[in-house]
Amino acid sequence: MSTKRTAVFISDRTGITVEMLGNSLLSQFDHVHFNRITLPFVDTLEKAQLALEQIKQIGLEEGTRPIVFCTLVNSEVRNAIHGDNALFLDLFEIFIIPLEKELGQKSSHTVGKSHSAGNVKDYNARIEAVNYTLSHDDGQSHKNLDDADIILVGVSRSGKTPTCLYLALQFGIKAANYPLIPEDLDNMKLPPALAKMKHKIYGLTITPERLAQIRTERKPDSNYASLANCRRELSAAEALMRQAGIRFIESTTKSIEELATTIMHETQLARRVF
Amino acid sequence: MSTKRTAVFISDRTGITVEMLGNSLLSQFDHVHFNRITLPFVDTLEKAQLALEQIKQIGLEEGTRPIVFCTLVNSEVRNAIHGDNALFLDLFEIFIIPLEKELGQKSSHTVGKSHSAGNVKDYNARIEAVNYTLSHDDGQSHKNLDDADIILVGVSRSGKTPTCLYLALQFGIKAANYPLIPEDLDNMKLPPALAKMKHKIYGLTITPERLAQIRTERKPDSNYASLANCRRELSAAEALMRQAGIRFIESTTKSIEELATTIMHETQLARRVF
Repeated sequence: MSTKRTAVFISDRTGITVEMLGNSLLSQFDHVHFNRITLPFVDTLEKAQLALEQIKQIGLEEGTRPIVFCTLVNSEVRNAIHGDNALFLDLFEIFIIPLEKELGQKSSHTVGKSHSAGNVKDYNARIEAVNYTLSHDDGQSHKNLDDADIILVGVSRSGKTPTCLYLALQFGIKAANYPLIPEDLDNMKLPPALAKMKHKIYGLTITPERLAQIRTERKPDSNYASLANCRRELSAAEALMRQAGIRFIESTTKSIEELATTIMHETQLARRVF
Repeated sequence: MSTKRTAVFISDRTGITVEMLGNSLLSQFDHVHFNRITLPFVDTLEKAQLALEQIKQIGLEEGTRPIVFCTLVNSEVRNAIHGDNALFLDLFEIFIIPLEKELGQKSSHTVGKSHSAGNVKDYNARIEAVNYTLSHDDGQSHKNLDDADIILVGVSRSGKTPTCLYLALQFGIKAANYPLIPEDLDNMKLPPALAKMKHKIYGLTITPERLAQIRTERKPDSNYASLANCRRELSAAEALMRQAGIRFIESTTKSIEELATTIMHETQLARRVF
């Protein structure tokens, strides 16, 4: 039987961390449909009070109490929300005490320490990586290819661009990408600009069915999008990558996060920002 | 006194969630310098054993035990790592029991349920948002502006592009952006294409000092990068946005995550992907 419950993510900051952890926990319950609400920037008693009112209201309307995931650094704010009106799972509260004990230090209990732009070095590294990645998208520039941390290759629409952007934004990685175009595939050769770069090339592939589906959304009823053509391109691209000794990964059943992390892991690239 | 400790993030998946939560907790301890290691895709007993060896080794070399944040769904894998060799903070273990009790259901204990590409609808929405955002970066296309969920404006280098890309990748939001160029500022008018779009425009601003610093890295010793010019442009841009009734936010001390989330929150935009 499928049931419906509301999950609320509350944070004194962006709420991104608590949403990610909460969603990963909720995904373990197949038979519950979760309605999700995020309340970011809850950093005053007043906002805590408003959040509590909203939680109470949901409980009244639905007849079941909401499940609330919080990361609230300030204990006054936290205490103003906690109570019997919801199942409260506070990530901060549960972990900070054992950490204080282990480190022999009190925590600073300061809101807004993580992913802060206060760290100008990290911020600059991210922006620089994003700019680099944008100007080296889809093989548009051979300039400064030596500066690339990684170069992704693959046929058109195999997932190179979003993966590169994620690498840049999340990890500060300078990620160039080159399409393997029909010419490259006919010659069974990598794009000439990449010949000396093999050590930092990584490939993406995808199933012909999925590729045809993606390309059809872009150019319906074209040869480009036809299953036969997708099959041909992919089989040639995979043969080319094998021959060149380039590792590759199948993107079909993987999220952008998984593609990016797998590539980082397998190439032993270290993230440049935290 | 500043001390040094090693933090290890272990996940059976990408490790991104556990890194984010771990970093947000560690940032509460000012006087400790943390060396960080991430071990993603630890999903077999064999990999768990290797992770444990690495943890033991760090403890021996440093004379203090590492702090280990994990999200390990499989209890066998988890038990193979846990022990006295580290402070183990397992996010999954701590929260899954109260959730099971509250929901009256056993969790599926399945690895890899969250941000999975299995959800083709979510995946397509993200890719579509990224493509839209790329083709509407820096005012390069007026086409389909009606489809934009949001349009960011601001002077050159105020942080529009990375914020738009983050909105697209993380939340599936179609985010266009337009630079406010000297012409717009002289006329005290928004770019003409945006005249009918006011309801979905949001502005970015920045301090003149920071802007001059960023622009100097791009074009040293130029009028474009000079503090006087940055002051002039920013003051005109802010006056223009005020006059047009456009809300804006200062990007100087904010991370990309904070900018994106604040804009989502203030414009009441709902995320399109989870």
